[in-house]
Amino acid sequence: MMHVELENIQPIIWRNDTLELLDQRLLPADEKYIQLNDVESVARAITDMVVRGAPAIGITAAYGVVIAARHRYAKSTSDWTQTIQQDLDVLLASRPTAINLFWAIEKMRYLIDNAEGDPVSILLYEAMRIHQDDIQANKTMGQLGAAFINKGSGVLTHCNAGALATGGYGTALGVIRSAWQQNKLNKVYADETRPWLQGARLTAWELLHDNIPVTLVAEGAVSALMSSGQVDWFVVGSDRIAANGDVANKIGTLAGAIQAKHYGIKVMVVAPTSTIDMDVEDGAAIPIEHRAPDELLALSGQTVAAKGSDAWNPVFDVTPASLIDIIVTEKGVVESPNSAKIAQLMQS
Amino acid sequence: MMHVELENIQPIIWRNDTLELLDQRLLPADEKYIQLNDVESVARAITDMVVRGAPAIGITAAYGVVIAARHRYAKSTSDWTQTIQQDLDVLLASRPTAINLFWAIEKMRYLIDNAEGDPVSILLYEAMRIHQDDIQANKTMGQLGAAFINKGSGVLTHCNAGALATGGYGTALGVIRSAWQQNKLNKVYADETRPWLQGARLTAWELLHDNIPVTLVAEGAVSALMSSGQVDWFVVGSDRIAANGDVANKIGTLAGAIQAKHYGIKVMVVAPTSTIDMDVEDGAAIPIEHRAPDELLALSGQTVAAKGSDAWNPVFDVTPASLIDIIVTEKGVVESPNSAKIAQLMQS
Repeated sequence: MMHVELENIQPIIWRNDTLELLDQRLLPADEKYIQLNDVESVARAITDMVVRGAPAIGITAAYGVVIAARHRYAKSTSDWTQTIQQDLDVLLASRPTAINLFWAIEKMRYLIDNAEGDPVSILLYEAMRIHQDDIQANKTMGQLGAAFINKGSGVLTHCNAGALATGGYGTALGVIRSAWQQNKLNKVYADETRPWLQGARLTAWELLHDNIPVTLVAEGAVSALMSSGQVDWFVVGSDRIAANGDVANKIGTLAGAIQAKHYGIKVMVVAPTSTIDMDVEDGAAIPIEHRAPDELLALSGQTVAAKGSDAWNPVFDVTPASLIDIIVTEKGVVESPNSAKIAQLMQS
Repeated sequence: MMHVELENIQPIIWRNDTLELLDQRLLPADEKYIQLNDVESVARAITDMVVRGAPAIGITAAYGVVIAARHRYAKSTSDWTQTIQQDLDVLLASRPTAINLFWAIEKMRYLIDNAEGDPVSILLYEAMRIHQDDIQANKTMGQLGAAFINKGSGVLTHCNAGALATGGYGTALGVIRSAWQQNKLNKVYADETRPWLQGARLTAWELLHDNIPVTLVAEGAVSALMSSGQVDWFVVGSDRIAANGDVANKIGTLAGAIQAKHYGIKVMVVAPTSTIDMDVEDGAAIPIEHRAPDELLALSGQTVAAKGSDAWNPVFDVTPASLIDIIVTEKGVVESPNSAKIAQLMQS
């Protein structure tokens, strides 16, 4: 059995034939893992954001398929490849925007379609490979992205594109980790990222875990920060990249990119090629998840907004390729992204 | 004694020789007034944001001077005009950015310097006049600003520049109230305004109080909202306007203006001329208040950010005049503001 490299922060662990997820809803107050042994629980964990971040969702779904196959094959060795289809559908429906979910399930589906005998070992091997490859891709991207950052730079990141959002190490935070190790960073800023506060809760926790000092800002303070000259790069992850280089990512990424453009600050998107959806021509075709108004109207279960308020709560936005300076993938870096360059990258 | 017109929402009431402030820290959950009878408590109420909003701070400080004069004159009819100076200093130091505070205290100081006999009646009359004039200015600005809004428009506002931030009726929300009464508005959006959530807590409460439906958005969702075509005007108040038309206002105003510019959405600043500081050449010279990191790191006293996080918490930013389409004052509207136009307005 392949060994999944142990990182300090492990959002996803396969142990004793069980999927364990670090419950990100409770961070940073509590570090608590939940154990999952059925596919509905795995899908619910994705929907409810026990685990979040495009690559982490993909890896989780892959392990979910392993769990589904174990149950289905135990029930019937003859028709499990049919009955498991509804499990795949349940997983596919868990969240709409991150393409890595669909990508991982399609990889698993290929093995199901070609399975002979007990499929569990081979599916588990594939899930662990997806997991392992993701960590390796993050480390590669960390090096590739850090190479663009000059010594003495300040960086701002949005949401959490770190170890918690991936198999480990992180995409945007992978670049920040690598640049920090190379003593290139003067200062790391994270915006708090409303409404779920991924920046304040998760990114700050991760960076401090690695002894990287972090300063939080409200999203409203990003312009003041950028105009102060303390930031050279706005570094983010992605949930789906269209074939033309448009980038879907956490709501507020577009705002950050527009402000960066205004102040001549560079925008770096860091994502594995599993995030690139060549079937989607441009960002307009990427489905954007809207979540419950209560994410805005209440905090920790307590109503904060005035009673009777409505809320509009899209949780992703699309940053056009024209606002992006570089897209860093494990296969290489695309500068000033467009359709031709993305196509060339994907064929490499 | 002059009668201060009773509005539905009254953040500041003078009753039974006592200053009563609606405690805005508790809204929308509790509508509770606190009674103030000494100048230190008035200054603390401003610092702690029991009352906030530039015009409301000015009015509160004026009543604070009345309270100070009552105490000082009762103690000594001969040297009260000297001893009250330290009270004025305490009030002046309560918050640094909103110029209306200084403007109101200077108006009161003029009467103190020219006082004969018991000063309380004349100072109270002046404070009530400042209060009354502010409400009247808001109504004038409401009409002037609404005239620029076409029927069927969507508006987005930031922070709270409403009845709660003024003597009553509001600056930005005064325009929105007037435009709503004229059936011009399709939709009113408010962003929640981190970290103090003035949008979610105060603006939503005020608008719903007047039966104006409001939809809240995270500040990160402003770009997605603007790109969707649902917003025609970004309408805000101001804490201080420099002689060249640069506008200091709640942190995040600059971000909204940059995004509005990007999407061709118009920016309207609504503020009485008491907000214009002709002694400040441009926005760079406006002092920007920074508040405690805890405003970002905790919510309702509970830590949310990772332990050990630092935070950068400027609570105002400066939007350059070049990003502003119109400044609406009670003396008239300045389009594409610049030094010459502002000077002309102030001489009118």
